[in-house]
Amino acid sequence: EEEEEDTSLQDPWQDEEYFGTYGTLKLHLEMLSDKSRTEAYRQVILSNSTALGNKVVMDLGCGTGIISLFCAQLAQPSVVYAVEASSMAEYTRQLVKQNSCEEVVTVLQGRAEEIELPEQVDVLVSEWMGNCLLFEFMVESVLLARDRWLREGGMIWPSSAALTLVPCQADSYYTEKMAFWERPYGLDFTPLQPLAHQEFFTKPKFSHLIEPDDCLTAPCDVIYLNMYTLQVKDLEEIKGKFHFRVEKPGVFHGFTAWFTVYFESLEARGATVELNTGPNSEYKT
Amino acid sequence: EEEEEDTSLQDPWQDEEYFGTYGTLKLHLEMLSDKSRTEAYRQVILSNSTALGNKVVMDLGCGTGIISLFCAQLAQPSVVYAVEASSMAEYTRQLVKQNSCEEVVTVLQGRAEEIELPEQVDVLVSEWMGNCLLFEFMVESVLLARDRWLREGGMIWPSSAALTLVPCQADSYYTEKMAFWERPYGLDFTPLQPLAHQEFFTKPKFSHLIEPDDCLTAPCDVIYLNMYTLQVKDLEEIKGKFHFRVEKPGVFHGFTAWFTVYFESLEARGATVELNTGPNSEYKT
Ligand SMILES: [Ca+2]
Ligand SMILES: [Ca+2]
Repeated sequence: EEEEEDTSLQDPWQDEEYFGTYGTLKLHLEMLSDKSRTEAYRQVILSNSTALGNKVVMDLGCGTGIISLFCAQLAQPSVVYAVEASSMAEYTRQLVKQNSCEEVVTVLQGRAEEIELPEQVDVLVSEWMGNCLLFEFMVESVLLARDRWLREGGMIWPSSAALTLVPCQADSYYTEKMAFWERPYGLDFTPLQPLAHQEFFTKPKFSHLIEPDDCLTAPCDVIYLNMYTLQVKDLEEIKGKFHFRVEKPGVFHGFTAWFTVYFESLEARGATVELNTGPNSEYKT
Repeated sequence: EEEEEDTSLQDPWQDEEYFGTYGTLKLHLEMLSDKSRTEAYRQVILSNSTALGNKVVMDLGCGTGIISLFCAQLAQPSVVYAVEASSMAEYTRQLVKQNSCEEVVTVLQGRAEEIELPEQVDVLVSEWMGNCLLFEFMVESVLLARDRWLREGGMIWPSSAALTLVPCQADSYYTEKMAFWERPYGLDFTPLQPLAHQEFFTKPKFSHLIEPDDCLTAPCDVIYLNMYTLQVKDLEEIKGKFHFRVEKPGVFHGFTAWFTVYFESLEARGATVELNTGPNSEYKT
């Protein structure tokens, strides 16, 4: 995950009209600029290119349509239904045309619970992962689409997902946000430390980049989601057990969480593609 | 000006209760972390330390009270009225005590138009400058406080302010936001360029750091505010004339604006302290 650098006066996540503002380009640029994520989907299509031949694919929440375009350009599916709820769909249609993929990719504007397809699909692909995996709860739409449109024995990409936790130190962040108040400009600002603690250490910090060295022990998977059996009601309360034995000295500042998603192969003994956003992954963002 | 690095889900500027959320620590940390700004105020107090002896000072919108504390520690004013509208005032009182300045600094919670002081002041100091100088329009409160509480012939810090404009190139920003769509992942995303242009190049971009090399000509002051004569009604519509002769080749991507504020000396021929946030300033943020 990358640090966001733009100071924007608009925060689209706060907006009530999620599907309206989601159509703004800033968020799409952020997603596309996340190379490890986009390249993982590209790799999935590429390594399944033969098996995707003549398959019916649904790309749910397709955004710019990048995954659908990968499908059309790297494989020969019979059709890709690119589903997008926001008004971005209008541009997705233009992008499909611009890349000469309109024979294969059909863009449908609507939500998972509303759209109508002419047929069941063989493959349901979606890029639904948010902060801490589940933030945004777009996964719910994937489950609805699965139950309505995925044929018996069809494939879901990602096929499963894990949320991993590790106790960690965050010395430079702590110094910047907490130690700062000890003697700024020669003054004693320690009365503000309880406020600083509340402001910076009681809420989740998103887009935190953790170095392998900052992990105080081996990480532990606390949630595992099987996309074939997961139910909407399972998402109402998610419990995970974890147990850590801290292995190296350091100050325990908190837990860092990240996700890994797995894309099973359409071929019998084909390799699973993995997108791991954690500190030891080979992907660099 | 510094790039903001935190991806926060809360945007306090959007909040209607400006004076409520302004009391959050994140903004105070940002202001204090702006070393050039804070050091400029410190320098003003330091170079006027003799002349500040026995003076009555008002620090309007004092926040953590850093300027008031500088006054009390580096000079001997008779009193500093530290005025803060937000609930931060409660913490400001604690900081004053923690730094043993309660004999000199009196914290008053209230807005400029509400507060009551027991006397007129000799010096009105405030850190009111926002983006493009006037963003936040806190300067209005300074004018109200001036008219109500500054004695005839009193000093205002800053004493004057200028907004400077320069035509500039922004190649790396342009590449990141516009050229990106030309061939990402081998696809033609140019139909999104009009959207990208609208999203990233028609709204002001805050916290832009400009390199001297990116200026296409010499900058030009377009607005100059004299804090002694400026009226609230002058702020309703501000006009400035400018004329540039572009001196070097480059792509003109837009204008960069920054401010400079000037702090006159309390002493007859004392040097003016200048805080210049532009690309050629000696201050580094
Ligand atoms: Ca997402
Ligand atoms: Ca300010």
